[in-house]
Amino acid sequence: MPRGERVVRSIGDDAAVVKALKLCVTTVDMVVEGVHFTLDDPDLSFQDIGWRALAGALSDIAAMGAQTGEAYMALGVPSHVSEEQALEVMLGAEQLAERTGTTIAGGDVVSAPVLLASVTVVGWAERDQRLLGREGARPGDQVAVTGSLGGRPLRPLPRLKEGRALAQAGGHAMIDLSDGIATDAFHIARASGVTVELELERLPTNEATERTAARMGVPDWNAAATAGEDYELCVCVPSKRMDRVSHAYKRVAGGADLTWIGRIVEGPAEVVLRHNGARQALRGFEHLA
Amino acid sequence: MPRGERVVRSIGDDAAVVKALKLCVTTVDMVVEGVHFTLDDPDLSFQDIGWRALAGALSDIAAMGAQTGEAYMALGVPSHVSEEQALEVMLGAEQLAERTGTTIAGGDVVSAPVLLASVTVVGWAERDQRLLGREGARPGDQVAVTGSLGGRPLRPLPRLKEGRALAQAGGHAMIDLSDGIATDAFHIARASGVTVELELERLPTNEATERTAARMGVPDWNAAATAGEDYELCVCVPSKRMDRVSHAYKRVAGGADLTWIGRIVEGPAEVVLRHNGARQALRGFEHLA
Repeated sequence: MPRGERVVRSIGDDAAVVKALKLCVTTVDMVVEGVHFTLDDPDLSFQDIGWRALAGALSDIAAMGAQTGEAYMALGVPSHVSEEQALEVMLGAEQLAERTGTTIAGGDVVSAPVLLASVTVVGWAERDQRLLGREGARPGDQVAVTGSLGGRPLRPLPRLKEGRALAQAGGHAMIDLSDGIATDAFHIARASGVTVELELERLPTNEATERTAARMGVPDWNAAATAGEDYELCVCVPSKRMDRVSHAYKRVAGGADLTWIGRIVEGPAEVVLRHNGARQALRGFEHLA
Repeated sequence: MPRGERVVRSIGDDAAVVKALKLCVTTVDMVVEGVHFTLDDPDLSFQDIGWRALAGALSDIAAMGAQTGEAYMALGVPSHVSEEQALEVMLGAEQLAERTGTTIAGGDVVSAPVLLASVTVVGWAERDQRLLGREGARPGDQVAVTGSLGGRPLRPLPRLKEGRALAQAGGHAMIDLSDGIATDAFHIARASGVTVELELERLPTNEATERTAARMGVPDWNAAATAGEDYELCVCVPSKRMDRVSHAYKRVAGGADLTWIGRIVEGPAEVVLRHNGARQALRGFEHLA
């Protein structure tokens, strides 16, 4: 359905009214000045802040394999942010909303001691559509990621169409990478009760990864594993469906390939990182040594 | 559908998945320490803060005449609030959720400089169900309110079943009273392009109103008109349906009556307050003189 056509009533009423599909997929994501971003970062505009706030929630929808629907933005605006700057935040969110086919259908604006945005996205799926969680990974599955890791794009584009393709083509489990694969893969390990083995040499990198690595003073593979804020997807796929999933991804990703970075094995709920023959097991959210 | 049965996936995945009805009714409401409440208020517990945060959003769902569904709570927790106190906030919200048949299906917890909660409620309606906005008031409509005004209950109970009954029985427009009828009625006047005439002597009061009035140092009728935080409903009803709407309300409100407090007339978008023969017109959100 074209953007906005689902929306029956919108801003100006007590609540927005939207025509539903069979399954409603909802996520909420809050970002706070001084915690998730600062206003004295010369690289980060108010529009970027709005874009990134919406991107975080949309990426959760992508990771389920659902289609995006409506966004609701609650904005807290401090006295050190002007009305014009607050509107820039909304404009940045609207730019990403337009780009992804999302309708910003409501929200709230209140005073607050710092700038903050709480973004709810309501996505949709048909009842028989495959939606992926974190709990479906099985021993024997192969693990892939989209795009390149560690690049920390200023305006990440959530992998919405890619997420739907990966789910439809038969992925078992999926998650978006917000904290870095080393940490996020542990969510899959824990929810699925499996060991996730990752080969750090295989992590996809590009020039942006190199820049992040240089800033962090670590090797590229370390930045790719731990930098976070990628908003790429990590998917677990049964071996027999690797071809089908690869092709489905390539079709929606403009010819780009998935990168296969590891496998699921029986064992304790942990992430095993392998690099040049060395092995490190993570049983929690501790940082990579 | 019993509470929770709609929920297919919940906390622990990237997003919650819920079986939808035909129309999705969504609202978001944010409350911030130092703006909407303070932690040094001896009458206000952390549980009360959670209850009230959810009540604000549920009241918007009530004002549309929709049924409640799922709530998503994004909580910002400062260092001066303990983990136990943050859990009390969630517990207070859960108490109201249970009371109203709402499922808290997801959320986010982040660090923040002050305690804050952003609550999204997703309610539901069948496609042919009447949902009321603010724009439907017509000259000749009679204006009624539920309950008593100005009492400022610590744990308000949103008028969910009453809202549905008022919408189904043929109300034209409805709003919940968060800022006080003098201010909230202006939303209806503006959205509907009509004049709302209110008789201040008729505003329903009780002992709680008297206590508020004493604290504010104003007459009861003034507290009833301006104190706010009532979470009662104001509904505009065509004259020929007054009986039907009254009976529908009485049936779900345990025998209580609506109070008829005014009427809609042709004229500029304003609220006209009448009291003992005096008349004051409000053309904006200014406070009652």
